[in-house]
Amino acid sequence: MGDLLSALDFTKGGGLVVAIAQDYVTGEILMVAHLNEQSLRETIDRGEVVYWSRSRGLWHKGEQSGNVQKLKNLRVDCDGDAVLLEVEQVGRAACHTGKRSCFFRRWDGERWVDEGEQVFDPAEVYGR
Amino acid sequence: MGDLLSALDFTKGGGLVVAIAQDYVTGEILMVAHLNEQSLRETIDRGEVVYWSRSRGLWHKGEQSGNVQKLKNLRVDCDGDAVLLEVEQVGRAACHTGKRSCFFRRWDGERWVDEGEQVFDPAEVYGR
Repeated sequence: MGDLLSALDFTKGGGLVVAIAQDYVTGEILMVAHLNEQSLRETIDRGEVVYWSRSRGLWHKGEQSGNVQKLKNLRVDCDGDAVLLEVEQVGRAACHTGKRSCFFRRWDGERWVDEGEQVFDPAEVYGR
Repeated sequence: MGDLLSALDFTKGGGLVVAIAQDYVTGEILMVAHLNEQSLRETIDRGEVVYWSRSRGLWHKGEQSGNVQKLKNLRVDCDGDAVLLEVEQVGRAACHTGKRSCFFRRWDGERWVDEGEQVFDPAEVYGR
């Protein structure tokens, strides 16, 4: 993989970098999670996003729900501790709540307002 | 500020949440940094983004360069450990390198390719 790791700094995040998933067509931010070196390599090998979760380890996003994220572009920030994953979101929903994006709550100055689009019913997808 | 903190979880990040700055018109991701509770409150009070930097503490972005980020919308993700700051980027550049976005390097499969738009010369803005 050539000099893939040359631009990345896993030290500041204790072995992890922040990973932002963005819809590659609309620019919508879908979710934020983390990658370690192994999950970064798997993401590139598969062409689908594999995060690193502190609780579940290697996490091939969408493996259970079918809502995988196909990698279209990978970018890294100036100091190498965050990557931007431009993805095609299969199934249209990234969030485990069934919302399109995990960022479905907006602060209106007094309270959090739920503006998210409900794409699926999590009870049906993940079981009861 | 009502129930602002009710949706936020600072515990997982050791007092910090991940903060993504996105151009509120184009959807472009400009940078990623962190907020603590104080910097979140200052961001809302000022209407301009104030990050929390492990090295420099409270960091009113653009104070030196003039390239402040005017807050247009604040969103929080499903588990409360990341916020999305939809901003108007004054001066058009968010990165200390003078690039429009900090994510100016894209992986082409073999190497990192610099695709960023150079908006200003950092030597002129920050001095030599």
